[in-house]
Amino acid sequence: MNGSEMGIGMSIFDDRINTLRCILEQKGIDFYIVPTADFHNSEYVSEYFSVRKYLSGFTGSAGTLIISKKEAGLWTDGRYFVQAEKELKDSDIVLYKSGEEGVPTVSEYLKDNVQEYQTIGFDGRVISADFGFRLETMVEEKKVKFVYDKDYADMVWDDRPLMPSTPIWCVPENLCGENVSEKLKRVRESMAEEKSENLLISKLDDIMWLYNIRANDVECNPVALSYSFITTDKAFIFVQKEAVSEELITYFNNNDIQLKDYNEIVDFLANNSFKGKTWCSKKDTNYMLYKLVSSKTEIVDKANPTELLKAVKNETELENIRKYYLLDSVVLTKFLFWMKKNVGKMPMDEITVAKKLDDMRREIEGFLDLSFPTISAYRENAAMAHYSATAEDKSEIKAEGFYLVDSGAQYIGGTTDVTRTIVLGKISDEMKMHFTKVACGMLRLAKVKFLKGCTGRNLDIIARQPLWECGLDFKHGTGHGIGYILNVHEGPHSLRWQYREDLKEVELEKGMIVSDEPGMYVANSHGIRTENIIEVVNEDKNEYGQFMGFNHLTFVPIDLEGIDISYMEPADVKNLNDYHRNVYEKLVDFFEGEEKEMLRCATRELPFTF
Amino acid sequence: MNGSEMGIGMSIFDDRINTLRCILEQKGIDFYIVPTADFHNSEYVSEYFSVRKYLSGFTGSAGTLIISKKEAGLWTDGRYFVQAEKELKDSDIVLYKSGEEGVPTVSEYLKDNVQEYQTIGFDGRVISADFGFRLETMVEEKKVKFVYDKDYADMVWDDRPLMPSTPIWCVPENLCGENVSEKLKRVRESMAEEKSENLLISKLDDIMWLYNIRANDVECNPVALSYSFITTDKAFIFVQKEAVSEELITYFNNNDIQLKDYNEIVDFLANNSFKGKTWCSKKDTNYMLYKLVSSKTEIVDKANPTELLKAVKNETELENIRKYYLLDSVVLTKFLFWMKKNVGKMPMDEITVAKKLDDMRREIEGFLDLSFPTISAYRENAAMAHYSATAEDKSEIKAEGFYLVDSGAQYIGGTTDVTRTIVLGKISDEMKMHFTKVACGMLRLAKVKFLKGCTGRNLDIIARQPLWECGLDFKHGTGHGIGYILNVHEGPHSLRWQYREDLKEVELEKGMIVSDEPGMYVANSHGIRTENIIEVVNEDKNEYGQFMGFNHLTFVPIDLEGIDISYMEPADVKNLNDYHRNVYEKLVDFFEGEEKEMLRCATRELPFTF
Repeated sequence: MNGSEMGIGMSIFDDRINTLRCILEQKGIDFYIVPTADFHNSEYVSEYFSVRKYLSGFTGSAGTLIISKKEAGLWTDGRYFVQAEKELKDSDIVLYKSGEEGVPTVSEYLKDNVQEYQTIGFDGRVISADFGFRLETMVEEKKVKFVYDKDYADMVWDDRPLMPSTPIWCVPENLCGENVSEKLKRVRESMAEEKSENLLISKLDDIMWLYNIRANDVECNPVALSYSFITTDKAFIFVQKEAVSEELITYFNNNDIQLKDYNEIVDFLANNSFKGKTWCSKKDTNYMLYKLVSSKTEIVDKANPTELLKAVKNETELENIRKYYLLDSVVLTKFLFWMKKNVGKMPMDEITVAKKLDDMRREIEGFLDLSFPTISAYRENAAMAHYSATAEDKSEIKAEGFYLVDSGAQYIGGTTDVTRTIVLGKISDEMKMHFTKVACGMLRLAKVKFLKGCTGRNLDIIARQPLWECGLDFKHGTGHGIGYILNVHEGPHSLRWQYREDLKEVELEKGMIVSDEPGMYVANSHGIRTENIIEVVNEDKNEYGQFMGFNHLTFVPIDLEGIDISYMEPADVKNLNDYHRNVYEKLVDFFEGEEKEMLRCATRELPFTF
Repeated sequence: MNGSEMGIGMSIFDDRINTLRCILEQKGIDFYIVPTADFHNSEYVSEYFSVRKYLSGFTGSAGTLIISKKEAGLWTDGRYFVQAEKELKDSDIVLYKSGEEGVPTVSEYLKDNVQEYQTIGFDGRVISADFGFRLETMVEEKKVKFVYDKDYADMVWDDRPLMPSTPIWCVPENLCGENVSEKLKRVRESMAEEKSENLLISKLDDIMWLYNIRANDVECNPVALSYSFITTDKAFIFVQKEAVSEELITYFNNNDIQLKDYNEIVDFLANNSFKGKTWCSKKDTNYMLYKLVSSKTEIVDKANPTELLKAVKNETELENIRKYYLLDSVVLTKFLFWMKKNVGKMPMDEITVAKKLDDMRREIEGFLDLSFPTISAYRENAAMAHYSATAEDKSEIKAEGFYLVDSGAQYIGGTTDVTRTIVLGKISDEMKMHFTKVACGMLRLAKVKFLKGCTGRNLDIIARQPLWECGLDFKHGTGHGIGYILNVHEGPHSLRWQYREDLKEVELEKGMIVSDEPGMYVANSHGIRTENIIEVVNEDKNEYGQFMGFNHLTFVPIDLEGIDISYMEPADVKNLNDYHRNVYEKLVDFFEGEEKEMLRCATRELPFTF
């Protein structure tokens, strides 16, 4: 019997929160915000940065905890309502279901509850400047004080794990295609255009790209915790001492890069006499550093120049990407054939098949890591965004319905991402219709020809049209950029249709790669997503301008058992046949015997209905 | 023999400019800008406002004159290069061909030529605040003084025509569907949302819409020169005394609208004690008024709330619009049949046939005026944007090639706009291909289904795709909004694809009407444009959102002699057949005998090729 059941209402988490409350009271902090973030707004947080989990007991990947005298509240989104209720039930923490009607956002809650002249506290390194400034505006009228100088929760966390600090390695020039000096030259050209004498970068993948280095400090993201400060003639990098080898020191020396300790960044900026303006992105810099820098120098608040430079892959990168996407496609195709062949004949569940696929990828030479935890979802589970099977909560896979697998890996030569949905047995006519429309949308977008100057907002409709025509839609973007031996999600380009006044759109450029992943989800029934990665290429240039298009990087059959040509235009049938002919030609040398027969059958030409 | 030929180089225009130079020297003005504009940035300027024409002798509809001691320069765009060279040849005015490589813009020229502490002058009422502020920024470093208090050219123009001042009439409520009080209520709701206590409107069509009045002060635009100033409890309108009847005074009194003289606006604003913020659009207000207002009150610089409210037509307006678009379609169809029947059998030229069409429209009950001067362009003339045939320069029309006619009218019940291109005889296979692709694009866009939230930038590609697929394009927007008994071009919505960081996009809403006018132009050969006006409608609403689509308002056959189905998808053939069936059903009751037969043939069903 635990405290809660005895009516005492005292779980280990309440304990931790109460201890923290004592410290907060001493420091005069009335509301303390604990988000789920590291100092760089990374997609995943390591154990060291899991303060919210430590304090609340809630283990989901997204959520914010606010602690005041009155209550402790946890905000999380629809993916985690059930899990959060379960994990919070023994504590006094109140669950705020983000997005539900009548539930205030974190900022609204603070606005409504904070009193005049009270103090809001947070670790200024785990709150983005962007969010911090919006919060400042929200509570402007209350004349609130902000305290953000340290992580107060650290004082109550005795056995806190160490900050991740994995060895940093260099990407050789034959693999990255451009050395640091060349990259710094281009960055400084951008700085000159923006009349900035300094540039502060906090975005980890941008720093990795710029210095041609990688590490493993964030799950699935081959990055090192770091900062960089660049002036017109100097480049400083701040990394953890433990991550640095002799070889790396030599590399930095040879490239005239000033090496500093990760923890020196605050002092360095505080003591720096800034000459001219400083480029510093509010979106990508934490509140503490941004406040510090903006108190000392005029700021140019734009996305880091590295973001766009990194997104346009050079020919060396593209050659490696094409090679690894093909190897990755071979493995996924073999895995899907194995599933289709063996389903119903042997026990399978979402976890075991995902493990099999992950293991198959590990066999590819150059494999480093997964690029994100494999999403392996059977039947209705696939209808849930961000579904993640666990040892305790997983579905057995039988010879019926759809199975969806969204997966990818980090290789020394590229980062992959691909989704296929396959038919394991009987599916309804509606499911076939949905599957066919999704496939048509994916293939139409990959086939579209457009003029230079188009952004993702111009093109998104091409993928959605087959669904929109039927009054259907998928509630996520159509595509995102992808890193090169870097994060599987990267900007600045994307494929989405919604308009946002504050969002700067980015033209698609030759050498960018982007996912093309329409889907269709029916709650409690099925989920479909078909995702290829496509490369932006130049087509004809004539008096009308530079025409552009896409080439497929992914070569995995689209399950013909899910296709009903009565839902297709003749051009769609041609698109599918063209793609499958291409898939066969690319993959055939990697297949033999029965598998080769399966490949031939899986990529067979469909007849036209007209 | 004139002065120029005698080597004296003194035309009447040089004379006028030199007289002005004397005045400018007295006033200490080093550069004087004379644009082509009235005080409201209207699309057309009347004789009174044609200062640039009076001074330079250049009669084109667009151009800017800059006069300094050193030279007088005239800027105009590609449409007018030939004409301007001809008209300027006897004067010392230097022609600056806007858009040509190496030619500075007006702002760049001023930036390059103005010296420190010099003075730039212009009539602050004919320069938009938007342009004025951009100019200020351009010459910031030169510490330039701006003088903009009056129209100095007025002093040299003895026989200047009067300012236009046509009688203002009221649109009865059964024709406009919403009275002034209701409109003012909605405007004030928008003002409250923007926390503005005052609103200054200078945009003429916005003022006409708000007060349900019309006049004829601008060519083809049924508007009165006017301003309006609205507070939380008062509404002032500034119009010319001569335009006001007893009936109008009663109407304004009954609606509690304060009537002021047009010329009082400056004094009124100068003496007004502004309470709270003032909504005033930099884009739609002239520099003089904006400077005055912004010196006295905090400004909210956004498009007038009236712009969006006006764009969404109410049911009364839509009913009238549908009715008049049908009557207008009948007339255009009969005209096109007449041309096809008689071409080659009687003399025709671009001017005479346009006059015939205009006269046919005049016969429609409720006809007020043309909505713009009819564009009547044969063969290669149609490839020129904004081609305008003149008595001196026009083409004879024969039984071969394409003929393009873009036309429309103002009716008491709507403003129309429609373009058709017809085949008068032999055309090449390429011309057929172009014609077919344009028709497919127009019909595809009109057929598209989309989710609420889409703006024109999401949809534009649908109309361009058939052309882009072939490496072709048309260099103009796909569509613009249209007024109701108002300007044929109105915002804030449009159909275009290019991204502009500073352009606020506007969602398409039920009740908006928009043109759908793809085209294809080959210099020295042919020009094609097919334009329908379409109405935004709601379709299904379900868990994915509110789906939307378009209904055609224009019902004029698309010339099947230009169509080659081998360039179409089966869905395109179906689109065309569906449209033509619809055209036949809508028009048949207006046709008899031989014309009815022609209608039946012109809207016949095409077979599918597959």
